[in-house]
Amino acid sequence: MSNSSSNKSQSQTKNNPDSTGHSDQTFDAIIVGAGSAGLAALREVAKRTKRFLIINDGAYGTTCARVGCMPSKLLIEAANAYHRRHTFETFGITGSNALAVDIPAVLRRVRRLRDDFVAGTVSITDELGARSVSGRAQLLSSTQVQVNGQTYSAKGIILAPGSSPILPPAMQALGARVLTTDTLFEQTTLGPRMAVIGMGPLGIEMAQALARLGVAVHGYATKEMLGGMSDPDVNAELRQALERDITLNIGAEASLHAVEGGIEVRSGAHRTVVDQVLVAIGRSPNLQGLGLATLGVPLDKHGLPPVNPKSMQVGDSPVYLAGDAHNDRPLLHEAADEGHIAGLNAMAPTPQCFERRIPLAIVFCDPNAAVVGQGFSALQRQDGLQFVTGSVNFVGQGRARAGQRNQGRLSVYADAASGCLLGAELCAPAGEHLAHLLALAVSQKLSVAQVLGMPFYHPVLEEGLRSALRDAARQLPDAVSSDLAHCGPIGALALD
Amino acid sequence: MSNSSSNKSQSQTKNNPDSTGHSDQTFDAIIVGAGSAGLAALREVAKRTKRFLIINDGAYGTTCARVGCMPSKLLIEAANAYHRRHTFETFGITGSNALAVDIPAVLRRVRRLRDDFVAGTVSITDELGARSVSGRAQLLSSTQVQVNGQTYSAKGIILAPGSSPILPPAMQALGARVLTTDTLFEQTTLGPRMAVIGMGPLGIEMAQALARLGVAVHGYATKEMLGGMSDPDVNAELRQALERDITLNIGAEASLHAVEGGIEVRSGAHRTVVDQVLVAIGRSPNLQGLGLATLGVPLDKHGLPPVNPKSMQVGDSPVYLAGDAHNDRPLLHEAADEGHIAGLNAMAPTPQCFERRIPLAIVFCDPNAAVVGQGFSALQRQDGLQFVTGSVNFVGQGRARAGQRNQGRLSVYADAASGCLLGAELCAPAGEHLAHLLALAVSQKLSVAQVLGMPFYHPVLEEGLRSALRDAARQLPDAVSSDLAHCGPIGALALD
Repeated sequence: MSNSSSNKSQSQTKNNPDSTGHSDQTFDAIIVGAGSAGLAALREVAKRTKRFLIINDGAYGTTCARVGCMPSKLLIEAANAYHRRHTFETFGITGSNALAVDIPAVLRRVRRLRDDFVAGTVSITDELGARSVSGRAQLLSSTQVQVNGQTYSAKGIILAPGSSPILPPAMQALGARVLTTDTLFEQTTLGPRMAVIGMGPLGIEMAQALARLGVAVHGYATKEMLGGMSDPDVNAELRQALERDITLNIGAEASLHAVEGGIEVRSGAHRTVVDQVLVAIGRSPNLQGLGLATLGVPLDKHGLPPVNPKSMQVGDSPVYLAGDAHNDRPLLHEAADEGHIAGLNAMAPTPQCFERRIPLAIVFCDPNAAVVGQGFSALQRQDGLQFVTGSVNFVGQGRARAGQRNQGRLSVYADAASGCLLGAELCAPAGEHLAHLLALAVSQKLSVAQVLGMPFYHPVLEEGLRSALRDAARQLPDAVSSDLAHCGPIGALALD
Repeated sequence: MSNSSSNKSQSQTKNNPDSTGHSDQTFDAIIVGAGSAGLAALREVAKRTKRFLIINDGAYGTTCARVGCMPSKLLIEAANAYHRRHTFETFGITGSNALAVDIPAVLRRVRRLRDDFVAGTVSITDELGARSVSGRAQLLSSTQVQVNGQTYSAKGIILAPGSSPILPPAMQALGARVLTTDTLFEQTTLGPRMAVIGMGPLGIEMAQALARLGVAVHGYATKEMLGGMSDPDVNAELRQALERDITLNIGAEASLHAVEGGIEVRSGAHRTVVDQVLVAIGRSPNLQGLGLATLGVPLDKHGLPPVNPKSMQVGDSPVYLAGDAHNDRPLLHEAADEGHIAGLNAMAPTPQCFERRIPLAIVFCDPNAAVVGQGFSALQRQDGLQFVTGSVNFVGQGRARAGQRNQGRLSVYADAASGCLLGAELCAPAGEHLAHLLALAVSQKLSVAQVLGMPFYHPVLEEGLRSALRDAARQLPDAVSSDLAHCGPIGALALD
């Protein structure tokens, strides 16, 4: 769900119970928002009842498919395919000077596949007929929702209104040159000069991808730590990787100013004129006008009610809040989990608590950056926790060298007493895959030695991860020696 | 170690204890072979004593670094980088018609990096001075080894003589046009027409890489199942992938015949003339002349003595056999484990048994093929075992589509009663990474539900693996419902 009003694929009112504007229907569940969280809730609700309603305001198709994960990855895949030409001469491939990128064509493919991904999600609500309503929902009480002038009651209400890109009014006032992800992928072309404000995961991904497509990109961040990293060594690696593609300005706030033929970005003493600016400073929950105050629970300064992250329940009410609107873990897989939990609990006699998954965050830059489980700073903040850091630099790693991908660093953190893997941060080749391997290990509370007991094929990038694990193992108390986990490196850098 | 006599980097005799040709030294351990297994054994031995000897016949540098894993991956990386041009137009990248591959330049890079990898391994023995001897070793008894006319005694002997490519005399007789991995990477150029005999992992990898470098490749296999696969669905996918690049001839034995300007390959009714033939029909242990008969244990038809795979001990003797010479698991990571075990046990008062790692085999074709844990046919052969197969096809997978890598299939096998993951076969994008994730799961005897409890980010290829796990879960008894492992797909193909 989004606050945009374009792209409505469904009529304003499919459900018109009576002419008074009041429905005599009481539903088992009402879902507000047909985004990823809402659709996940819908799946559970629809398994259990036909007496439900799903209400969506604005564009259908989920943030992820429409303006988030999917179109961004389409842009990145094209950018990285083109960028790979820099390895060609070394491999023995000639003619890369003749390669060029057609940004309008790249964007057309992004939209074409994006539309296909969106269609898959839209078809879910399209099949529901009168049970799907397009309009802006407002809570009247913990069991009543008003939409398009109609009031509906339900035993359980799931709120999954999603979020919208933050765009400060002063920036928005500058007009069409100022973009967010809502508008970025709708452009017919981009550049030749762009600024990206905000070096969170999305800002980093788009800044690097645009640069690799030939746009001159200036990136702006207020904080040293980029993309959610907290380990200084890993962050340094990520920064170095980014600075191969973009000009990075770190420290001062950036402000935008209209000038002849473009927008001037000012940050500290730095001034640059660009053609377009992508504002990527975060998203805010779509809570305005939702009527949360009617629930009678205290709202925080962001207007958020207290939500139990294990049940998604708002206070003791029959209302559940799921997805980006919760703003705790604004990630697709977490939104899907939250919708799942909310859907089950809205239909259950009493809400149940679910064990949430361990944290996993990935930045799809190259090399990929990721935080798995508990990051470095989260561990440092824990009083009395002793942990060891095992680290590897990929510069000399054999397989990475073979593929001309030998950049990056990976650090694992393990409990100094038990050897249990607590988390990892990385900016490393195939980092998205290494992060999933580590996520399984952390999920299962495995020790460093247990992970070292698995087979590592040769030559693979996972051997780099193994080097980091071995580095951690050297700092841990000895485990049983009849365990092959203690089989050490052969001693030739490129082979280990 | 290899039977090739080229590339000797050390003098014939560094150790010349006395003029009679008999040493009065008794070593704690003698290691025969300075390949991966031998070097792994050396690491453990050298930690515990300075009274050891390592003897190597022929070229130093390990099969893996010199003629195996490393040069093959260097060729593959270049081939796949070049092949990726076929995706360029769709991505929006123009000019790919101007790209060309310079095979001699590709091979020069292969050798340059290969030499660097080899140097890393050679330096290990180079630093040993008189404790490293170049020559062909022969057992005189379970405690005596003869080399270069000298006899040495040791309390423990580790045999790691390695293996050599099988090249039938009739094929060898055809001369320089007939290649094995010992000679492939030494060529100044390759093609334009080549045959690859044998579609095991190496044959598949090289056939596809050569084809992607522009060589017209004919591949020959006698059996339907390719590259170690045993699941018919996965094998069909692998076959289909290969046939996009090469002409595959399956069924009859291939024979080679010298003709004007090339070699004719005959297989059944099929005749093709090629410029070169790569024979990739396997490797045989370097056991000839090793003197295994002196151990007084029965040898099998291949000349192999009984070896305990958990201790590497030969019968009850103080002799240990490790690495490819064992021929049980001719893979680098297994050779390293076997050398590790043999090195520890040769130095121990009594040999210990080690739990071996679960099987993992990867074919670095594109998409990568792999077998993890127990393959399909191994499971089928187990009396009384009921297992379920969960499968996914990557054609519609979202991230794979974004990257134009949407080919392949992955199947997981789980115990029908316990849900425990037993193994997997796959031919899938990023298969080498998915295989490692599965290898950790199988190593830890995790259930399908336990793996589904980890976070899967979006959009990633691991979501394809999750689809296969969910497919398996649907066929398994229900687990606890408060487990997020049961969070299902959203229902839009490209998003799950």
